[in-house]
Amino acid sequence: MGKVKILVVHGPNLNLLGEREPQIYGRATLDEINSALNTLSEELDAELKIVQSNHEGVLVDEIHEARRWADAIIINPGAFTHYSIALRDALAAVGLPVVEVHLSNIHAREEFRRHSVIAPVAVGQICGFGVDSYLLGLRAAVKLARERKKE
Amino acid sequence: MGKVKILVVHGPNLNLLGEREPQIYGRATLDEINSALNTLSEELDAELKIVQSNHEGVLVDEIHEARRWADAIIINPGAFTHYSIALRDALAAVGLPVVEVHLSNIHAREEFRRHSVIAPVAVGQICGFGVDSYLLGLRAAVKLARERKKE
Amino acid sequence: MGKVKILVVHGPNLNLLGEREPQIYGRATLDEINSALNTLSEELDAELKIVQSNHEGVLVDEIHEARRWADAIIINPGAFTHYSIALRDALAAVGLPVVEVHLSNIHAREEFRRHSVIAPVAVGQICGFGVDSYLLGLRAAVKLARERKKE
Amino acid sequence: MGKVKILVVHGPNLNLLGEREPQIYGRATLDEINSALNTLSEELDAELKIVQSNHEGVLVDEIHEARRWADAIIINPGAFTHYSIALRDALAAVGLPVVEVHLSNIHAREEFRRHSVIAPVAVGQICGFGVDSYLLGLRAAVKLARERKKE
Amino acid sequence: MGKVKILVVHGPNLNLLGEREPQIYGRATLDEINSALNTLSEELDAELKIVQSNHEGVLVDEIHEARRWADAIIINPGAFTHYSIALRDALAAVGLPVVEVHLSNIHAREEFRRHSVIAPVAVGQICGFGVDSYLLGLRAAVKLARERKKE
Amino acid sequence: MGKVKILVVHGPNLNLLGEREPQIYGRATLDEINSALNTLSEELDAELKIVQSNHEGVLVDEIHEARRWADAIIINPGAFTHYSIALRDALAAVGLPVVEVHLSNIHAREEFRRHSVIAPVAVGQICGFGVDSYLLGLRAAVKLARERKKE
Amino acid sequence: MGKVKILVVHGPNLNLLGEREPQIYGRATLDEINSALNTLSEELDAELKIVQSNHEGVLVDEIHEARRWADAIIINPGAFTHYSIALRDALAAVGLPVVEVHLSNIHAREEFRRHSVIAPVAVGQICGFGVDSYLLGLRAAVKLARERKKE
Amino acid sequence: MGKVKILVVHGPNLNLLGEREPQIYGRATLDEINSALNTLSEELDAELKIVQSNHEGVLVDEIHEARRWADAIIINPGAFTHYSIALRDALAAVGLPVVEVHLSNIHAREEFRRHSVIAPVAVGQICGFGVDSYLLGLRAAVKLARERKKE
Amino acid sequence: MGKVKILVVHGPNLNLLGEREPQIYGRATLDEINSALNTLSEELDAELKIVQSNHEGVLVDEIHEARRWADAIIINPGAFTHYSIALRDALAAVGLPVVEVHLSNIHAREEFRRHSVIAPVAVGQICGFGVDSYLLGLRAAVKLARERKKE
Amino acid sequence: MGKVKILVVHGPNLNLLGEREPQIYGRATLDEINSALNTLSEELDAELKIVQSNHEGVLVDEIHEARRWADAIIINPGAFTHYSIALRDALAAVGLPVVEVHLSNIHAREEFRRHSVIAPVAVGQICGFGVDSYLLGLRAAVKLARERKKE
Amino acid sequence: MGKVKILVVHGPNLNLLGEREPQIYGRATLDEINSALNTLSEELDAELKIVQSNHEGVLVDEIHEARRWADAIIINPGAFTHYSIALRDALAAVGLPVVEVHLSNIHAREEFRRHSVIAPVAVGQICGFGVDSYLLGLRAAVKLARERKKE
Amino acid sequence: MGKVKILVVHGPNLNLLGEREPQIYGRATLDEINSALNTLSEELDAELKIVQSNHEGVLVDEIHEARRWADAIIINPGAFTHYSIALRDALAAVGLPVVEVHLSNIHAREEFRRHSVIAPVAVGQICGFGVDSYLLGLRAAVKLARERKKE
Repeated sequence: MGKVKILVVHGPNLNLLGEREPQIYGRATLDEINSALNTLSEELDAELKIVQSNHEGVLVDEIHEARRWADAIIINPGAFTHYSIALRDALAAVGLPVVEVHLSNIHAREEFRRHSVIAPVAVGQICGFGVDSYLLGLRAAVKLARERKKE
Repeated sequence: MGKVKILVVHGPNLNLLGEREPQIYGRATLDEINSALNTLSEELDAELKIVQSNHEGVLVDEIHEARRWADAIIINPGAFTHYSIALRDALAAVGLPVVEVHLSNIHAREEFRRHSVIAPVAVGQICGFGVDSYLLGLRAAVKLARERKKE
Repeated sequence: MGKVKILVVHGPNLNLLGEREPQIYGRATLDEINSALNTLSEELDAELKIVQSNHEGVLVDEIHEARRWADAIIINPGAFTHYSIALRDALAAVGLPVVEVHLSNIHAREEFRRHSVIAPVAVGQICGFGVDSYLLGLRAAVKLARERKKE
Repeated sequence: MGKVKILVVHGPNLNLLGEREPQIYGRATLDEINSALNTLSEELDAELKIVQSNHEGVLVDEIHEARRWADAIIINPGAFTHYSIALRDALAAVGLPVVEVHLSNIHAREEFRRHSVIAPVAVGQICGFGVDSYLLGLRAAVKLARERKKE
Repeated sequence: MGKVKILVVHGPNLNLLGEREPQIYGRATLDEINSALNTLSEELDAELKIVQSNHEGVLVDEIHEARRWADAIIINPGAFTHYSIALRDALAAVGLPVVEVHLSNIHAREEFRRHSVIAPVAVGQICGFGVDSYLLGLRAAVKLARERKKE
Repeated sequence: MGKVKILVVHGPNLNLLGEREPQIYGRATLDEINSALNTLSEELDAELKIVQSNHEGVLVDEIHEARRWADAIIINPGAFTHYSIALRDALAAVGLPVVEVHLSNIHAREEFRRHSVIAPVAVGQICGFGVDSYLLGLRAAVKLARERKKE
Repeated sequence: MGKVKILVVHGPNLNLLGEREPQIYGRATLDEINSALNTLSEELDAELKIVQSNHEGVLVDEIHEARRWADAIIINPGAFTHYSIALRDALAAVGLPVVEVHLSNIHAREEFRRHSVIAPVAVGQICGFGVDSYLLGLRAAVKLARERKKE
Repeated sequence: MGKVKILVVHGPNLNLLGEREPQIYGRATLDEINSALNTLSEELDAELKIVQSNHEGVLVDEIHEARRWADAIIINPGAFTHYSIALRDALAAVGLPVVEVHLSNIHAREEFRRHSVIAPVAVGQICGFGVDSYLLGLRAAVKLARERKKE
Repeated sequence: MGKVKILVVHGPNLNLLGEREPQIYGRATLDEINSALNTLSEELDAELKIVQSNHEGVLVDEIHEARRWADAIIINPGAFTHYSIALRDALAAVGLPVVEVHLSNIHAREEFRRHSVIAPVAVGQICGFGVDSYLLGLRAAVKLARERKKE
Repeated sequence: MGKVKILVVHGPNLNLLGEREPQIYGRATLDEINSALNTLSEELDAELKIVQSNHEGVLVDEIHEARRWADAIIINPGAFTHYSIALRDALAAVGLPVVEVHLSNIHAREEFRRHSVIAPVAVGQICGFGVDSYLLGLRAAVKLARERKKE
Repeated sequence: MGKVKILVVHGPNLNLLGEREPQIYGRATLDEINSALNTLSEELDAELKIVQSNHEGVLVDEIHEARRWADAIIINPGAFTHYSIALRDALAAVGLPVVEVHLSNIHAREEFRRHSVIAPVAVGQICGFGVDSYLLGLRAAVKLARERKKE
Repeated sequence: MGKVKILVVHGPNLNLLGEREPQIYGRATLDEINSALNTLSEELDAELKIVQSNHEGVLVDEIHEARRWADAIIINPGAFTHYSIALRDALAAVGLPVVEVHLSNIHAREEFRRHSVIAPVAVGQICGFGVDSYLLGLRAAVKLARERKKE
């Protein structure tokens, strides 16, 4: 079937990973996460495009763009998880399978972090496993992408 | 009295109209809506400036700019309807008459879409008529603009 | 296609228009609104039946009656907007396209006026433009009526 | 003990049964329901008075009237279920045993339909069985009426 | 200054007073209350028009009518206290001073009876004193009516 | 069509009927209810299996078992009405028509008893008629079972 | 029957009446209100003890004391209306009939002023009539006191 | 380091998988899921104990037992997700790393399914990927188990 | 009067006491608590039956059984405190005086632990004193049992 | 270890015990409760200081004072339980172990009485046992005081 | 313009500053805060009157008194922040500019501490800076006082 | 110690200060505020970097940047106060002391403006003093910056 193409979206403040509240978000930097993702993607025969931005509009634009080439999306919406209906609508608009990931277990944190406006437009959610949330998410996304190409 | 000048603001994800969830938003593209608006504006002797952006900040900047030249604003805030207090404050700050429009009937959709943070700073709201929401909104805006110029 | 037929429903207290809290509802009387509607309906090749009542049951009966002859309904439910589920169910029962109009912008008023039990059974809503809410509503209703006849 | 006398009250919009949203309310007309009720009432040795109105005040008046002759009341309050405290107070005022019936299972529908202001003044509630809600309700009402006469 | 004219409005189910739940509403009949009101009105040099109806629309019509002749309104809205925004809007529309009375202390009863949609458009409220709620209300209304005529 | 087969499920604490709070639940014992059910089932040409348990898991197991032989289910979930989503999911899983019954009128009791997590997966609900809730429920269940066999 | 004895309780900040927010509370001073009360009490053959304090504990002590001599209590709890459960319990403890009065119509003001923790232990409430709230309250209290002495 | 030992817990109604609401839960049977888990566990050098029960108490007992031998727990609590605080406390009591999995995306379903009482005592949550939720969960659990053994 | 008989009920997860979250629940094991209870019961001339189960149904069965022999019940419902209406109904059904105890101060913990569905059917509650909650509870229960036998 | 010293605080309205709503609070007077406390304190080798006040400020002052000499505090905050954050902060400020007691079972009464703002700063709570709530509370407080002295 | 006069009000429990929960409220005593205030007041040419009380009534009396001589008020309402509407009304009644200060950042603490009933009658609020909250508050108050004298 | 470095962040719409709703926000322009800040910063020996943007992402980027050079942050988040969790997380991520300022007293305005998502990550908040909110905030920030450098 050839390689599947996955857009990986990192939301706001994730550029500071490793240095930002490491007791919550761990000590891995975003570069290290991206390396791990790239390594696994080769194993899974997938091609990744990775973007990070602190600008909601940039993320919306990137997601729009992805509808022309991607087979699935992995997104860690960061703080946007809890209020960015624009992001949610963008994901719904492009119609690709979406895997929502979080480093921390958002359901075990402050009340306001337990609600995701993104979740209803995602296929599924993986949270709480640090870097592994991304890697498990990549496995899920690749599978969804392959199923989609088969249809 | 001469032409009245209207700023037309399209919020996030509206650039995908026609292709995005057409069962909700219809099959007209943004270009087609803009054409229809321009056609009607000629009939009504109005001049339009039309902007679309997925960036909240860009929309705020455009609205600020409008206070120097526009007589009224038509805005479909898209997803920003439900949380962008920045947009609301921008509209309140420029002091122009605002007509809020929506393609779908937001009061008949998911609970979170029924609340508009924009509404309290608008003169009125038109929703549920697809492209016609814009065209009716243009009629309303032109009338408000004319009344404003007369004062 | 011939004339389309529209039922125009004015809810409770609207008979006092012009004299009732004019700072909110404007100075136009109900007769003046009805004249304006009739004038526009001729231009749009529509035929109107206009009713006003302070009795919920009378309005329900009129709406039921309309299912035999009308092509669309324009309704300003007045105070019934906020609690008359009977009116809502009547509108749903007759299955005609419904345009909900309000003189004032109900979404910018007291909390209890922001919720419409009618909205979920209407095609769309127009509010805040005074008499023009009705006239824009008539344009919308005529278009919906024409589309319906075509089907 | 002689025949028991039962008032059967049909609330607003029930006159449209059979033609109104049949996927929810079924295809039986109100006449057919009334026939079925009359047939069963003969079998159970009961006498029925059946009223329907879209006017809350008419229903209140009828319920008041019933306190002079009826032994029990069956009521399908329709939309009034959810807000007519006047109806509730009328039922409480006359002091007869009340059986509340609904064609659809209101507890499985929209949130606002799950709350009945009538229920606290009824002996019991039967809902979800279409026409059979009425027939089961008649059985219950006749039994309550007989017990009441015995006291 | 001559007699002042007062409209006395009795809401739904009040026609059953004396026989309806006397442990809550007392044993006085509506006729007895009206007699007491008429007796006191003579003492206070006031003229009363007294209406009772179980129909919301009738009460709205009567209130509208009163704007042509009355100097004040006493209203016991009964069950309409809690949901009839139509009644509230009618009272606001006619612009007369309104005295809201209740036989029972609604603030000491079920939760839903503690909220009055009428209160915000009334000058004041008197509740809990049985027949005396009306008589005290009449004293208050006459005084308000006299002040109003003086203005 | 032959006999229909009905599973009758009694939830927790119903084994104490007759002795438990008889002012709420009546003086009939569970044995007496079961006898009455069996008598009526013969009249209606139905075969009953009756189970009672205070163990949620036992009830879930029984409901699962029923999918192999029963045509309908009558359930008085007792206290489980208000929180046992496991029971709800079991009923949804087996796909049989479900009739929910309660001895008392749960909608007229404490707030927490007014909400049923079972209701959304039931065809209908009968409550408030004591033993007759079961007998009316049996009539409803037999009818639903027959319709199901016909399909 | 002799004179009845009434305790009149003025809550916190009422010592500033006349000078405090006169647009809400009127221009009468507390001394003027007390004079008017004393004048009317003579007419009604009642004896008053009047206390004012900004100290909740002082008011509780005074109410306790009243159980030895008073026949009824009039209380304007001021700000304590909304939170002083101690005052409420004191009033309930002494078992005298309580008339709650307010100068302004608390049900037409800020949300937090609409709830009275005192109301459930009062016979009734009078609010919105300025000084007349007290005078009407005195009439009510005297009547309740006389009825109590008769028992 | 040798094999890690994982307890896999399937909650109520999961024994019906494949036949129960397949549009939500998929067509895989529990046996098929267990086979897939066992296959993957061999690849990951893990040993599984798999239990399913519709009895909350049985699951609590099994979890208690696991504290003597297991290195981690995978749990799909099914309906217990939403109310079984007993299960939550059991998981907290044994102090093993817990991976919560769900076949469907609970955050995109009915409101009551979006809240997990289990989540705050789990390391993380994986939902929405059908059978793959379990397989991804096994990967996560094995990694957590290995880290725990290393400590 | 002879010995009084007390049923002591330990809810779910209490079998792990001493090893489970000792910072919250203390270091005493259930055996040690039971020993302390037995020692005190001898001093107080009481006879205890002690049960612990993680199965709600087992506890309900035990409570039912107790109505034949016990004079009072001490219960630490553990996690069932917060949702087991079945347990609550069981306690209400047997009609014995109930003393609710908790090791920790549930009113000082997470929000969801502050609400007890058991409390409204208990005579009183003792919480926060660790093992002493039980011992104080035993004193209370013995006294209630003696009073009950005297009646 | 010598005597421990305990401050016993009785909140507002408790001076009326015995005469105040005896069906809720029992027939024992405050003097009788204090006698019983003194008797038991001798047995337990404790020294009591007992205060009662209807003034929140007096109680706060007394609690402050206690930090210089007391080893523990027993408090029945009466009505202050539900709103006196000043009392709560006073108890937190002095840092002594606090035992909260109530004569009645506050968790089985009106909704507003179920919430204690004091509880989060107390070691534990005892309620519902009348005078015995105090005596059990004294046992608990003495034990806490002894443990504190040992530290 | 001469010296401005400022009333500084310290609410309940602030007399224990320095010794009370120093991790929240810091180690400065009230005397030290007052010294710092007096030092700064000389620099700013202001005259202070400083009061502290644990009695709400005393604070209300002091605030009333201040209307005769003060130009502004600084208040740290302590626990009264969250419920003392009497204090709020006192501040509103005297009509002086009010500066609300808090040692800790109340918006970052327990939910109930985030709401201030005082805030709506204050000019502004300063919180979270320990002693500096007072000193910054003094600067603000002096400026407001000067502006007021100028008017 | 040398100069401390402070980042001053102005949120959306603050560029319109002076012209925007001056009755709420005052007549000072942003330039005037910045001048006042610069003047005071010289007096306090601080160095300022001042940024304003209507783009959330730009503010997040600036805050990230500040972690390399600033000693403290002053932020007026404008409309972002109420929803920008991204901003909140950015402030938490950089770990600098944050002073939140507002021109108006947000706690005395519309309900939605009373809640700040930024507050929990700020040291303190100053609001309601117009330009002086900034100047007092600068004093607070400089002090926090100095303390931080000392550590």
